[in-house]
Parts: sequence; structure tokens; C-alpha cells
Amino acid sequence: MSLALNKQELTEYLAQVFPQVHKDFVVEDLTETAITMRLKVEDRHLRPGGTVSGPSMFGLADVCVYAMVLARKGRQSLAVTTSSSMDFLRKPEGGADMIAECRLLKLGRTLAVGDVLMYSDGSDKPVARASLTYSIPPVGSEAAAFG
Amino acid sequence: MSLALNKQELTEYLAQVFPQVHKDFVVEDLTETAITMRLKVEDRHLRPGGTVSGPSMFGLADVCVYAMVLARKGRQSLAVTTSSSMDFLRKPEGGADMIAECRLLKLGRTLAVGDVLMYSDGSDKPVARASLTYSIPPVGSEAAAFG
Amino acid sequence: MSLALNKQELTEYLAQVFPQVHKDFVVEDLTETAITMRLKVEDRHLRPGGTVSGPSMFGLADVCVYAMVLARKGRQSLAVTTSSSMDFLRKPEGGADMIAECRLLKLGRTLAVGDVLMYSDGSDKPVARASLTYSIPPVGSEAAAFG
Amino acid sequence: MSLALNKQELTEYLAQVFPQVHKDFVVEDLTETAITMRLKVEDRHLRPGGTVSGPSMFGLADVCVYAMVLARKGRQSLAVTTSSSMDFLRKPEGGADMIAECRLLKLGRTLAVGDVLMYSDGSDKPVARASLTYSIPPVGSEAAAFG
Repeated sequence: MSLALNKQELTEYLAQVFPQVHKDFVVEDLTETAITMRLKVEDRHLRPGGTVSGPSMFGLADVCVYAMVLARKGRQSLAVTTSSSMDFLRKPEGGADMIAECRLLKLGRTLAVGDVLMYSDGSDKPVARASLTYSIPPVGSEAAAFG
Repeated sequence: MSLALNKQELTEYLAQVFPQVHKDFVVEDLTETAITMRLKVEDRHLRPGGTVSGPSMFGLADVCVYAMVLARKGRQSLAVTTSSSMDFLRKPEGGADMIAECRLLKLGRTLAVGDVLMYSDGSDKPVARASLTYSIPPVGSEAAAFG
Repeated sequence: MSLALNKQELTEYLAQVFPQVHKDFVVEDLTETAITMRLKVEDRHLRPGGTVSGPSMFGLADVCVYAMVLARKGRQSLAVTTSSSMDFLRKPEGGADMIAECRLLKLGRTLAVGDVLMYSDGSDKPVARASLTYSIPPVGSEAAAFG
Repeated sequence: MSLALNKQELTEYLAQVFPQVHKDFVVEDLTETAITMRLKVEDRHLRPGGTVSGPSMFGLADVCVYAMVLARKGRQSLAVTTSSSMDFLRKPEGGADMIAECRLLKLGRTLAVGDVLMYSDGSDKPVARASLTYSIPPVGSEAAAFG
């Protein structure tokens, strides 16, 4: 059990595969079974009333688990999200970044599962909870995407 | 059991409360227990490889159930998403709009639940499935948001 | 797209692989993409107040999707549940059987997804909604169970 | 933030409201925001092959969050499950009890959310993950059940 990519390598690879959105996200911390990421909240992430939108929080949770799988499996990974669940617990603060703490619960041969707690930066009360399942196709295969 | 807002009124109200994103969405059909909406797919909704992004699909499912609740409860509604689940079934086509068909499964005093099937326009194979729960605060109250 | 097992064959196979619980369940209807099953509600399925218990409803939804996968993939299947979500919509009636209507949304090489609406027999208002993902190991392999 | 019922009081109250099943469950540990419970695995909780059944694990997760809500809100609570999601991560061991560790993520006026990790006793690899939302009706009211 070890990392295929360290924090620096993972950051560079995310910039390469997510050119549209990588500037929104920062890898804050990375271990073999956990990752912490920051969503740099901009106006486009907000809803009326100044709260962070649901899709922005979904995107943050999704990228966390994806990044965790990449960090373990390496650059060749073509993992795709297959299932997700999310609970919205409190109103996020619009003026604050969002911090997501992800635990890798399972990294199997074909499926990976992570869960995520999200916080407004500076608060210790979770704003949302998510869990996501990724399907991992065999190396070199694109056909297996989406199971 | 009747609609508080018809299709035209609902469209106008969504434009008012979602100024950032309402142009992405079109109400295609509305009955007392179902709504069909279209996501007009633009470059900003895509991921590398040309598929519609997960957050874009989450946003479409979320707005469907929200619009359905508004159509039944009327303009005063301050409903907020509390829970969601989503399964990604097939790769969406990047060049096609997405069509979402939502059924209202429950409209209670304080909770509403809808489920959604999403398709690439022109295909009859579902690309994703979602279900969402909304919490409906008492009329005139903002305090009850997020339960 | 055709059935590997018809209703009679499926019923017999379920009796063989679920000796503890098969008598609780009846296959009412089966097509290539849908199955209807009945839970014959007994005292052991009830909670105080006479409502059907959550675990009993979860079990019904789970067996529906499993039976649907068996009907399509045939007897060799070692499919295991990997993800599920469930919404409880109304209080079920304790004195009535539960009827579950399952749609097969996806039957891929390695993953199958179905969703389920459950009703108290005789009512047309759904009591619960569920969706379940099954992982399907390659034929002859037990190793792939749980991905 | 304090407990309305301590471990002893909670155990006695569960025995009273769950006469059918309370002997299956033991409250192992209780704090203001977390509870650990044991499922004493018997033959009736097993599936062929000796693994703990999905419905048994669902029941364990459900009772954990319910017990946590009771411990905080007290005996009058009529909370009902409204939403749940569950991921099955590894094959549980049939010969071992199951240990569930639940965190209370939110305890609002009308909604409570907890998440749960489940382990085969003696192992540190999670067998399943669950999250559940409970709706909490106003004191003295049964009408609000199921939102």
C-alpha cells in the first residue's frame, strides 16, 4: 500500500487532465488513505443568497475521490464515477472556501469507494457529506468504462 | 392536487430566482406529478473527451425536482436539497442536449422526493438516474432551511 | 436482449439459492427489463405500530434487482450488491403485502443497476423508492466479488 | 449539547420500543456525537456462504442512527427514517459479530443525519458504509411522521 503519485505529481496530473477546472481545486494534504482538497470559491460557484451551489459541492466531492484513486493507481487510470450519494447538512458560507476531507474506504481491483466531509473554511461543522464509487477499468482498456 | 404555477409561470420564476443558470435549462413539459427539462449543453458543461460532466448532470437533476416543487407549492417556496443519490449508467454524448424526466414521488408538508432519469437527446437509454429530497420550510420562515 | 430464465425457472432458482427466505417472496411478473415481486408480510417483517420494517423493505428491493440480474444472466451469476440508496416516502400498511416494481436501468459487463418502487398491496401511492448496483464477476470467478 | 439518555437508559428504552429485535443489538459506547453498537450475529442474520445479509447490515446501521437520536432527544422521539444510502465494501465474516461506529453529523430541529462504518468484530477494514436521515416530528405530534 503506497502512493503512485505524491502531492506534487498529483497536482500536475490534475492540471493536465482537468484543464477547465483544475484552478478551482488545491490538494492540501495527501496520505495513502486520505486526501484534503480546497475549492477556491468564486462567484460562479455561488447561488443567490451567497451560498455555494450543490453542483459545486458535488464537483468537489467527485474530484476528491478521483484524485485519491489517481494518487494510488497512477496516471493511466480511466476511473469513472458510477454511484454517489450526498447529504446537505448546513448552509455553507459564500465568502469562504470549501475544504473537503476524503477517506478511501476501499480500493479494489475494479471498484473504489471514498467518503467525503465538506466544511466552510474555518468552521468545524460539516456542510455536506458525500460518498462516491468509482469503476476502475483494466489497464489499457477504455471499453470497461461505466461497467 | 393541482399546479400552483403553469409551465409559462414556472419558466419566468426560474429565470428570476436562478439568474446565473436559468438560460441553461428549458421546461419542456409539466404535469401535476412530472416535469421534463432540457439542459442546453455548452462547452462549460463538458469534460475532456466531450462528455457531459457529473456536476452538470447533478445540477440538472436538482433543478428538475426544485422546479417540480415550485410548480406545486408556488413562488414562496424556500425548499432546499437535503439528500441526493445518483447513479451514472452510460457515457453521455457531448454533442447532444440532456433531457431529464422527473417524477414527483412525494409532496408532504415538510419533505418532497422526486426521482429523475436523464438521457442524451435522441437516445432512449438512460445516462444517469437520480433521486433528491427537498426540505420545505413553513411559509414565511427561512429559519427551517436545512431542517 | 432476452431472458436466460423464465418466471418459473427463476422462482425455482431463488428457492435453491435463498433457502432461508425464498418463501417470503413471490415473482409476480417478469419481462426482459422489469420484474414485479411480492413480499408476503408476516409478523416478523413488522415493527411496533404494525408497519413493515426498513430492513424488510431493503431486503425486498435487494432481492428484486438480484432476481432481475439472474433472469438475464442465468444461474451461474455470483452478483453482489455494491451500492444502494433508499427513500422512505409513506407509512406502509402492516396488514397488507408489499408489491415491488423494479426496472433494470443498466446491465453492463460488470455492473447492473435497477430501481424499485414499493407499494402496500392495493394502494397506488409508493411507500419507498430504492436503487441498487450489483457487481457481476466474470463467469467462473468468485474472486471478483465486491470489486 | 448533552445526552438526554445515558448508555444504560438508552439500552432499556430500546428494549421497550424494539421488543422483537433489541436482543440482537448491544450499545457498546455512547458519547454526545457518536455511538458504537454490536450486532450479535445469529444464523438468521446470515446468507448462504456464511456472510451477514444486506438487510441485517441495513438494520444495524438504521438502529445506530435511531439510537443516537434517542440518546440526544430523549424518549418522546418519534423519529422515522426518510433517506438512506449504503455501500457494501467487503465480504463480512459470518462467524463474527458486526461492530457499527456511527457519527452524528447533524441534529437539527426537524432532520438528523448520521453516518456509519461497519466492521466484522476483530477486523479494521470496513465491511460497509451507510448514511441515514431521520425526520423528527414536533414533540407530541405523530402527524409529521414521514414529512
